[in-house]
Amino acid sequence: MEIHTDIAIIGAGPCGLFAVFEAGLLKMKCHLIDYLPVAGGQLSEIYPKKPIYDIPGYPEVLASELVSNLLKQIEPFNPGFTLGERAEYLLNHGSEGFEIVTHLGTRIKSKVIAIAGGLGCFEPRKPELEHLEDYENHGVDYIVKDPEKYRGKHIAIAGGGDSALDWCIYLADIAASIYLIHRRSEFRAAPESVEKLKKLEQAKKVKVILNAELETLKGNQKLESLVIHTEQGSIEIETSYLIPLFGLSPKLGPISDWGLHINKNAIDVNTLDYSTNIPGIYAIGDINNYPGKLKLILCGFHEATLMMQSAYKIINEGKKPSFKYTTVTGINNL
Amino acid sequence: MEIHTDIAIIGAGPCGLFAVFEAGLLKMKCHLIDYLPVAGGQLSEIYPKKPIYDIPGYPEVLASELVSNLLKQIEPFNPGFTLGERAEYLLNHGSEGFEIVTHLGTRIKSKVIAIAGGLGCFEPRKPELEHLEDYENHGVDYIVKDPEKYRGKHIAIAGGGDSALDWCIYLADIAASIYLIHRRSEFRAAPESVEKLKKLEQAKKVKVILNAELETLKGNQKLESLVIHTEQGSIEIETSYLIPLFGLSPKLGPISDWGLHINKNAIDVNTLDYSTNIPGIYAIGDINNYPGKLKLILCGFHEATLMMQSAYKIINEGKKPSFKYTTVTGINNL
Repeated sequence: MEIHTDIAIIGAGPCGLFAVFEAGLLKMKCHLIDYLPVAGGQLSEIYPKKPIYDIPGYPEVLASELVSNLLKQIEPFNPGFTLGERAEYLLNHGSEGFEIVTHLGTRIKSKVIAIAGGLGCFEPRKPELEHLEDYENHGVDYIVKDPEKYRGKHIAIAGGGDSALDWCIYLADIAASIYLIHRRSEFRAAPESVEKLKKLEQAKKVKVILNAELETLKGNQKLESLVIHTEQGSIEIETSYLIPLFGLSPKLGPISDWGLHINKNAIDVNTLDYSTNIPGIYAIGDINNYPGKLKLILCGFHEATLMMQSAYKIINEGKKPSFKYTTVTGINNL
Repeated sequence: MEIHTDIAIIGAGPCGLFAVFEAGLLKMKCHLIDYLPVAGGQLSEIYPKKPIYDIPGYPEVLASELVSNLLKQIEPFNPGFTLGERAEYLLNHGSEGFEIVTHLGTRIKSKVIAIAGGLGCFEPRKPELEHLEDYENHGVDYIVKDPEKYRGKHIAIAGGGDSALDWCIYLADIAASIYLIHRRSEFRAAPESVEKLKKLEQAKKVKVILNAELETLKGNQKLESLVIHTEQGSIEIETSYLIPLFGLSPKLGPISDWGLHINKNAIDVNTLDYSTNIPGIYAIGDINNYPGKLKLILCGFHEATLMMQSAYKIINEGKKPSFKYTTVTGINNL
């Protein structure tokens, strides 16, 4: 599929969504691309039911509520969406503009690109173990997609945070046996979860091994056992699954190879208009970097607004936008 | 009265109010000073019942509603208010900080000053007439404070916008006679108002004089008559009052004399932290100026946020603020 638009926005998080509004006020059309299957970015993916307190004018707002309000706000400008696809390749056609190709082959052509990719794609943090890749999908899972997969099986979970404890508690009734392996003596999880885990340990439903490091994966074609280094020396436990739950780590992904100036996983921009080193490509929100940068949604809103003034000149061949207040013009009489 | 605070904020408009929130997150106390008798700035004074469409996350919000939401948002941080007083003098005590003195003599001492004065104080645009000041408050009024003042009197209103027409229509039933004097042949007012005015003219309740300029004010101690230059030559009309309604023009006011770098009625700032040329004084919102500046509320929110990070270092002797997300910490567990 080939899509033509004025501005291709990579990332449909709060900043990318609001960028559509500011572009719309200047009569520019936008198309949003996001690897997630829904709009909203981290707000939808990581903390939809958590309240946010620092959106100006909202003493308290649920992340999911903010997303739906932003979607309503941009509705009059009717943006396009390509969701569930990752922006993979960038073709720079010079004065003809840009072409983004997604990992599923969708092509989006535009004069301007706004990268509003947040912290990038979230990838699981992996343990440093030899031959780890050989066992991935053959016993080693980083995400619990379907708990039923582990019914009646012997499993081991590694980690000491909320995610590790929550799944350990949840799977205690499903798995045949569970080891919880943690490298420290204290957990970083909610006190109620730690309490529940202790009860499960007393009831012999979970075996907890503290101050322990994963050492070796063993098995022919698939995981069969695990060697763990503990204070009492190395021990070997039989298990069909190892689920390391060490948290998700954001990665910039394919964008890193587009020739942009990147500094500590963020794209360097000019604070005048949040332009990158490639003329016509801007970076706004958590993904950009400049002196004094704060990774806050409200800062992304400002960046999106200033960026669109600059993009207007590219799309309208140097013409400056005329500045109007929505309080005076409204949205429908632009 | 003498007030001590961490940060004195001049201007209690949306930007000044949100600055209290961002300061509060960093445990800094604020005191707001505004010449208007209520918080909210232009939103309360000029367009409380108009909808705003470009506050991120609000498809539509009344100006007055935004103000009350911002007041609720900053409530946990309990800011001080000095309303109805104009920040008049600035004393710079060096390492001891600053002292602001209002026109009523209230003294506010602080380490940091944030100027969030919007477009400044709004002052009426005045006609260019000789001896105008002699008649001010002796027949010449720029604002209709109490319509009853004009009951049974002969009055003249000058102007062709909404304000001139609205008051002309309103006072038609109150005054003994009304002249409406306008320098063009067309009005800049809402079509309904122009329609109403025409009916009042036909009913001989209002005398409309178009393509006319005010020429001379006459009277002993107080206004008695007015010479007007029309296309047919000069005419003199008897009137006790002249109400020129040419709109309000913003003026920076006393702040202009504080030694700040001022450029086209705005204060030059560094976009790194919105600091002015005087260390410890910042300018945020519509009152500041930098390349690419847009006078939008959402931009002021961003500026207030970055500014407070910088102010923190002044108040905490060089220490950097630790950065926390409200989604993680909430507001009450800071």
